[in-house]
Amino acid sequence: MPTAETPKPPYYAVIFTSQRTDGDRGYGEMAGRMEELAAGQPGYLGIESAKGQDGFGITVSYWSDEAAIVRWKANLEHREAQDAGRKTWYAGYTIRIAKVERAYGFVPSGGG
Amino acid sequence: MPTAETPKPPYYAVIFTSQRTDGDRGYGEMAGRMEELAAGQPGYLGIESAKGQDGFGITVSYWSDEAAIVRWKANLEHREAQDAGRKTWYAGYTIRIAKVERAYGFVPSGGG
Repeated sequence: MPTAETPKPPYYAVIFTSQRTDGDRGYGEMAGRMEELAAGQPGYLGIESAKGQDGFGITVSYWSDEAAIVRWKANLEHREAQDAGRKTWYAGYTIRIAKVERAYGFVPSGGG
Repeated sequence: MPTAETPKPPYYAVIFTSQRTDGDRGYGEMAGRMEELAAGQPGYLGIESAKGQDGFGITVSYWSDEAAIVRWKANLEHREAQDAGRKTWYAGYTIRIAKVERAYGFVPSGGG
């Protein structure tokens, strides 16, 4: 998954760190569906995700403002996934809502 | 790597997303040293990291305030690692500095 192309700050980030339970048990399908559903929400700016082989993962989604985050959390299909996540997929998670104030990056010169 | 145990917000997060070049070339040793060095800095609160097999990784470090982040960025040994990172280890990266405003989590009841 590449870096999300986000606009100039300020905007918001939801930092979701999680420890998965063993086995897929429908997780992959749900995760794909949630990314698709999130991308269609008002205020959605992008998403980045990385998961190590130890099952510890970080997903950061970017949003224009806090109201967009609150709406996404309350989305019915997303709420069903949240419930299933607590029952089945996650051994634990932490969610942090943060306001991105500055951003910068590096791309090698002459890179393709 | 487990979830970082951070205090009650507000505090700051540095969201570092990167695409690695191929091969280790001393990266693992440097990354371990930088985590150790960061942990000794004033204002350091914790770090979380996940990297997929595609070489895309997310590292989030947590800090008490912006001044701590500025000091860490300017640390001489860290600056040398930043230079080496641009020359050798990273095909590209993005750094976002964000103020964590809210946080909550989930741990299964009865879990051990």
